[in-house]
Amino acid sequence: MEEEKIEKIMEIALKRAFFWPTAEFYSDRQAGFYDYGPYGVMLKNNIINLWRKIFLSEEENIIEIDGSQILPESVFIASGHLQHFTDPLVGCPRCNFKARADKLIEEKVKKQISEKLPLSEYDKLIQKYKIKCPKCGSSLKKTENWNMMLRTEIGVDFKKCYLRPETCQSIFASFPRIYRTMRVKLPFGIAQVGKSFRNEVSPRQGLVRLREFTQAEIEIFFNPERDICMEKVKEEILPLYIENKILKIKCGEAVKKKIISCNLIAYYLALLKNFSIKAGLPEEKIRFRYVDKEKPFYAKETWDFECLTSLGWLELCACNHRGDYDLIRHQKVSGKSFEIVDETTNKKIIPNIFELSLGIDRLVLALLDTNYKEDAQNERVLFTFKPYIAPIFVAVFPLVKKGGMSEIAKQIYHELKKDFSCFYDDSGSIGRRYRRQDEIGTPFCITIDSQTLQDNTVTIRERDSMQQIRVSKEKIKEELKDYKL
Amino acid sequence: MEEEKIEKIMEIALKRAFFWPTAEFYSDRQAGFYDYGPYGVMLKNNIINLWRKIFLSEEENIIEIDGSQILPESVFIASGHLQHFTDPLVGCPRCNFKARADKLIEEKVKKQISEKLPLSEYDKLIQKYKIKCPKCGSSLKKTENWNMMLRTEIGVDFKKCYLRPETCQSIFASFPRIYRTMRVKLPFGIAQVGKSFRNEVSPRQGLVRLREFTQAEIEIFFNPERDICMEKVKEEILPLYIENKILKIKCGEAVKKKIISCNLIAYYLALLKNFSIKAGLPEEKIRFRYVDKEKPFYAKETWDFECLTSLGWLELCACNHRGDYDLIRHQKVSGKSFEIVDETTNKKIIPNIFELSLGIDRLVLALLDTNYKEDAQNERVLFTFKPYIAPIFVAVFPLVKKGGMSEIAKQIYHELKKDFSCFYDDSGSIGRRYRRQDEIGTPFCITIDSQTLQDNTVTIRERDSMQQIRVSKEKIKEELKDYKL
Repeated sequence: MEEEKIEKIMEIALKRAFFWPTAEFYSDRQAGFYDYGPYGVMLKNNIINLWRKIFLSEEENIIEIDGSQILPESVFIASGHLQHFTDPLVGCPRCNFKARADKLIEEKVKKQISEKLPLSEYDKLIQKYKIKCPKCGSSLKKTENWNMMLRTEIGVDFKKCYLRPETCQSIFASFPRIYRTMRVKLPFGIAQVGKSFRNEVSPRQGLVRLREFTQAEIEIFFNPERDICMEKVKEEILPLYIENKILKIKCGEAVKKKIISCNLIAYYLALLKNFSIKAGLPEEKIRFRYVDKEKPFYAKETWDFECLTSLGWLELCACNHRGDYDLIRHQKVSGKSFEIVDETTNKKIIPNIFELSLGIDRLVLALLDTNYKEDAQNERVLFTFKPYIAPIFVAVFPLVKKGGMSEIAKQIYHELKKDFSCFYDDSGSIGRRYRRQDEIGTPFCITIDSQTLQDNTVTIRERDSMQQIRVSKEKIKEELKDYKL
Repeated sequence: MEEEKIEKIMEIALKRAFFWPTAEFYSDRQAGFYDYGPYGVMLKNNIINLWRKIFLSEEENIIEIDGSQILPESVFIASGHLQHFTDPLVGCPRCNFKARADKLIEEKVKKQISEKLPLSEYDKLIQKYKIKCPKCGSSLKKTENWNMMLRTEIGVDFKKCYLRPETCQSIFASFPRIYRTMRVKLPFGIAQVGKSFRNEVSPRQGLVRLREFTQAEIEIFFNPERDICMEKVKEEILPLYIENKILKIKCGEAVKKKIISCNLIAYYLALLKNFSIKAGLPEEKIRFRYVDKEKPFYAKETWDFECLTSLGWLELCACNHRGDYDLIRHQKVSGKSFEIVDETTNKKIIPNIFELSLGIDRLVLALLDTNYKEDAQNERVLFTFKPYIAPIFVAVFPLVKKGGMSEIAKQIYHELKKDFSCFYDDSGSIGRRYRRQDEIGTPFCITIDSQTLQDNTVTIRERDSMQQIRVSKEKIKEELKDYKL
């Protein structure tokens, strides 16, 4: 049932050019890569615009940079990725089959296996459960560490470089310059939207586990000895998920009870919750999962922001208290001072970092999944996107091409195009045209009919209710403008 | 003098965090990589927004996709890049020095050497001019082809993949799907903004020749047997540069005289000219250079759109008639049909392609260069950016912090922030604050002074004229809104 749903969504995504597998017609195409088509690009860009609005425009202390995706090796010596960013890989000496050890064991024992065990533990489990190569039946080799960074070589002397596995390393590596030139005061954030790359052993179908993906990351730099005030969000309720139990608790309360370690973290979790609801995730399908043993190697406190989809609970944003790990490491490897003076306490410190690491592709998928609706009664499927998230904001149709309706429709279309993402369609029956727009989640459709020719009114049809109102054509913009971001 | 200018601009760029060399504090940093800082990101995004407005919103037949940057090898077998995308490289057998053969010879003979000669020609010139290794004086090895694509390996079986050297290959490789799903009719365009990568032998300083760079490409698919009408731009004048002479000629005229091969090409050259002027390039500093012998390997007709900067004429956008080269090659290698039916003629064809391949980083540099102004009389430097291109649209200052001015200034700032990119500053003398904004090109500064406390008026200071007008604080938005995009 649920699997069926995700298949239907993927079908629409392909049919309507939201996205498709990269280089799909080539025999050497690789799994884990997707291209976004026209509606996918608009959906993605609308999500990023909302993210910029909530975290950059409406906040006062977060600035945005755009760093290179290729970085030299020493950045990843500093970050720890060269040493720690690995998956356990097991291989067959005979047929060359390879797989992630944890996943291979999971398949056999039908329960979850951690991806963070010491390598010898996997070998023990493989022995214990008598796991052989699933291709040829041979005994498997010892489990190895598989570094997930993609490598490349730069210049005529082939200098080893890596494609960043997370956008934030650009932020850390340039921290001293950004701090000095931008005249910022603690606490402040540096944000970045861009591509990251991970050489996954087994990328999952669709947009869940990609090898090339878009992140929107925010790194908040703060003095851990000086917490912030959070009046603005104190009463906001956070859905925390701790040891298999959901706890709905006010931000203020959660900090007071030491469930969340400080106001600053609670503040940004609340902001993230509000962003995600504004983007269109249903409030009852989101939670912050407290991550204990499976934390990333650099994290002191981790909350995974998850959404319930038909694939189960899906992590969309990792919220990590990274402590002073990153800046101390980068200071050490670069030899440059990463210390700054906190103007409030007038003391030199290495700031701590709290990050919101959002996966844009997964959010796209979660929105498609949670906003998908089958309306059997009206023989249609639709996406109930928020109007400012929908790829097309408004479509314009002449009821028929003749009698001057096309001309008026084109005029209206050209006028609306200046302010909205707009689509013109005059082919097929009006019912089919509505269905097509439903299928890409267009919230409003305007139809020019014979009455328009008489009294200059048009109909505006609302997607979810299918209700139509009739307004003067001069009033269309007025009617729609409040639904914009 | 001119070199001095570019150095000054680079100094401001660093000081004001427009951009900086990637991983600048690390000993193994690589040339040819730059990070954009906060003002650089805003400038770049404003340019991209203008590009989207002119080419996507205001045109009706261009759609946008966002493809993967990493593509499998066969895509570049199809595109020809694996075979042809090379620079001539010469090396020293003793000290391992390496350089581009054409550049090395140029330095010696002080005239321009083509980068497209047969390899043996370079060897002949090296012999003729007795060129030795500039590091150790040894005789040089034979010139080789150096492929400029960056390689990486994907998955546990290390499949060879490449970072795309131009964004358009994603467009070509997915052409059949985009055509089928988007219900488009010839001629139509597919656009893309994104990163491309070239392993340059000698990247140039600054943003001119990067190894990782942002392109905004548009590929127009058309039936060469069916030209378009171009009423809209017929009278537009194009500055063509052919065989060392400038020719200012109307679009219609240029096609009639067969200087430009068809209306469609003239139409898009005119659009590009209008875009670049709207972005802020001075009309007298742009030209379309007719490229004859130095054309890319896939091109039938090439016009390089250039801007006169203090580095000389700089190519910003390559305008290439690629013929049916790409689609025929991709069809052959993939085994998938790339043929479509032109609905107007009802015949099956492989479309031709005309492309506008714009380098965003170079446009950023050209805007910094041509918009830079020294105003010695007022002891200031400024960028005369168009208001919708400037990183900050409006800055808000309280004249002094006391007396309630800060509170009013903050209110105004928060109100303006909803509609404009806005900056608040209350530190230092008002003169210094104006200078700081001049230096990042902010067109408007609003000051709250003692008169504000009495009559609710503020001053708006215009950057270029330094003139101030006084308006009621309720009228600020009204006053500024026409300068938005």
